[in-house]
Amino acid sequence: MTGSVGLVKTETAEFDVELQLESGRLLSPITLAYETYGSLSQARDNVVWVAHAWTGDAHAAGKHTLEDRRPGWWDDMIGPGKVLDTDRYFVVCSNVIGSCFGSTGPTSSNPRTSKPFNLAFPVIMVRDMVHAQQLLLDHLGIEQVLTVIGGSMGAMQALEWAVHYPERTRSVIPIAGSGCQSPMATSLNAVARQAIYNDPLWRKGNYKPEHPPADGLALARSIGHISFLSDTSMHLKFGRRFSVRDGIFDFFGQFEVERYLEYNGRNFVDRFDTNSFLYLAKALDLYDVAWGFDSLAEALSSVTCSSLWFAFTSDWLYPPYQTETVVEELQKQGKPVEYHLIESDYGHDSFLVEPEKFTPKVVAFLDKLSA
Amino acid sequence: MTGSVGLVKTETAEFDVELQLESGRLLSPITLAYETYGSLSQARDNVVWVAHAWTGDAHAAGKHTLEDRRPGWWDDMIGPGKVLDTDRYFVVCSNVIGSCFGSTGPTSSNPRTSKPFNLAFPVIMVRDMVHAQQLLLDHLGIEQVLTVIGGSMGAMQALEWAVHYPERTRSVIPIAGSGCQSPMATSLNAVARQAIYNDPLWRKGNYKPEHPPADGLALARSIGHISFLSDTSMHLKFGRRFSVRDGIFDFFGQFEVERYLEYNGRNFVDRFDTNSFLYLAKALDLYDVAWGFDSLAEALSSVTCSSLWFAFTSDWLYPPYQTETVVEELQKQGKPVEYHLIESDYGHDSFLVEPEKFTPKVVAFLDKLSA
Repeated sequence: MTGSVGLVKTETAEFDVELQLESGRLLSPITLAYETYGSLSQARDNVVWVAHAWTGDAHAAGKHTLEDRRPGWWDDMIGPGKVLDTDRYFVVCSNVIGSCFGSTGPTSSNPRTSKPFNLAFPVIMVRDMVHAQQLLLDHLGIEQVLTVIGGSMGAMQALEWAVHYPERTRSVIPIAGSGCQSPMATSLNAVARQAIYNDPLWRKGNYKPEHPPADGLALARSIGHISFLSDTSMHLKFGRRFSVRDGIFDFFGQFEVERYLEYNGRNFVDRFDTNSFLYLAKALDLYDVAWGFDSLAEALSSVTCSSLWFAFTSDWLYPPYQTETVVEELQKQGKPVEYHLIESDYGHDSFLVEPEKFTPKVVAFLDKLSA
Repeated sequence: MTGSVGLVKTETAEFDVELQLESGRLLSPITLAYETYGSLSQARDNVVWVAHAWTGDAHAAGKHTLEDRRPGWWDDMIGPGKVLDTDRYFVVCSNVIGSCFGSTGPTSSNPRTSKPFNLAFPVIMVRDMVHAQQLLLDHLGIEQVLTVIGGSMGAMQALEWAVHYPERTRSVIPIAGSGCQSPMATSLNAVARQAIYNDPLWRKGNYKPEHPPADGLALARSIGHISFLSDTSMHLKFGRRFSVRDGIFDFFGQFEVERYLEYNGRNFVDRFDTNSFLYLAKALDLYDVAWGFDSLAEALSSVTCSSLWFAFTSDWLYPPYQTETVVEELQKQGKPVEYHLIESDYGHDSFLVEPEKFTPKVVAFLDKLSA
């Protein structure tokens, strides 16, 4: 039987340091919001680091209050007897810098002005997020993690751990990721950005939190949402059904798929900050594991850990060939690599919709690693 | 040697009729803008009807003035000695209703108010466009066309000709089309629509022509533009090049692909009407050749002509399986069908970028037909 981690609390850790960013700028101080589930072993060798995706947060499992309608975003995966078994592993998830769920980001107070950074926040890369996570690892008194696991932007973080912190990383499990943002993915973020820029309420990032550019952010989210789905998953979920409330020949009549995208876009506005959305989109667009190296081969040469990779057949945001490019280079270099191409119709979202298709392999991988 | 059709002029024909639309509404009067190239044969049996795509117009070949920087949109295809050889064929291209290049559309004067229709224009279907084209065929004194050829929305029109005017249609050549708009294609149009609705200048369609919702339309076009390209074509054209004018860590810095999309979106505003864009997007979304029939099989049962179909491997807007669904049903019904899946990296735009990959088959098909 599997269970819930129960009631949990998001903690915060403050670091009075100057984090040197890839851009050359310094970010200070650094606050990181995080949650942990399970117990750290005596040997401090049972740490599973969960890296979240673009709009995720530190709240990966359990509930904050008994009244919460939903548990954390990866509750299916994390808990006693679950894939990331909290009876065995000490699971840590921290909100990335640049985000809006407790870690330092554009909504944080700029120490120079005592006002929110907004666009004075520096452009960050995924690598910067991972550098910041080392502060938390130190704070928790952990030398090395058993694995870093994550999907999408989480997969990118996992790869950065493997490349830049080989001594701290026993393994990584990147899911539905990429070694390098493609121009297709960038173009989708570009139009999402533009949707926000076009909203007069955005005011170059100086909107009031209570008056965000809701139309622009909702549209930006809808655009992103399309890229998380697939032609097939849309056929399965919506087909060509027309909204029952509308007439087919009403100018403003909507197909179900249209209404769904709009509804979800609107909901997103209540839970995500617009500037954070833009900064993280930028971090995704700048993502290239070979950044600062002469080549992908050089970047991966420092990897020592074993890795377990998953890509999904219908994922057109980070298509399988992007994972395979990294996997093949690691294989060429003789690193221990396991790769699975998972048949799924659910596009990029497959890793959230059909976890049962890959989780047995995660369990086996972790069993072997911690045996 | 192949040549140009030279200087041409867009003609208009006015029809004082009430066109019964699929919605049940009546549209009257009907104006159709069109161009013709070559000469109608004595037997009136050499007509090639060119159906344009979403943002196309009647100006398919030649130039309007010697100073024109660019010829018509399919000039590569139409002219003496070209694929649609104007020494042999009488080529006709007319602007669809709902568009903004001379045919009746939302910018036309509403006879009831003597003001532009704007959103009082009725929602139309691709079928309505084809019904209206019959008026022009009559006007030109043509009983039957040798072929109807077109890409994208043009392919949809060709299929409607085959289904609804079998006696007038000796053949059709649908290129990069679909028998039915997919929810993926609709979702892209949905976010494009929303980009326009979000623009305060749109004013529910009552913008002044000199103050169109430029930001919204440009963004809508950029979104559409992405769907015309492909992951591979973007890699080939832009890769991950960053704009040389920008710094990588500038918040507003752009990748080349981003700058390109924005530039093309902005240019589009100068040549296309926003309401027309919305009405034609709607017509695409409503497109289903089986509309009004019990099934695809029933819809296609009336087809008598031969047909030549092309789909492109990297087209993710109208992926090959959509053409194949129609082709397979026609084959099942024993109709003469020829289908070619063309290997191309250029996505939906392949039919414009690499015409040489399919045009020899068009020439052979027409040769056989007119032999």
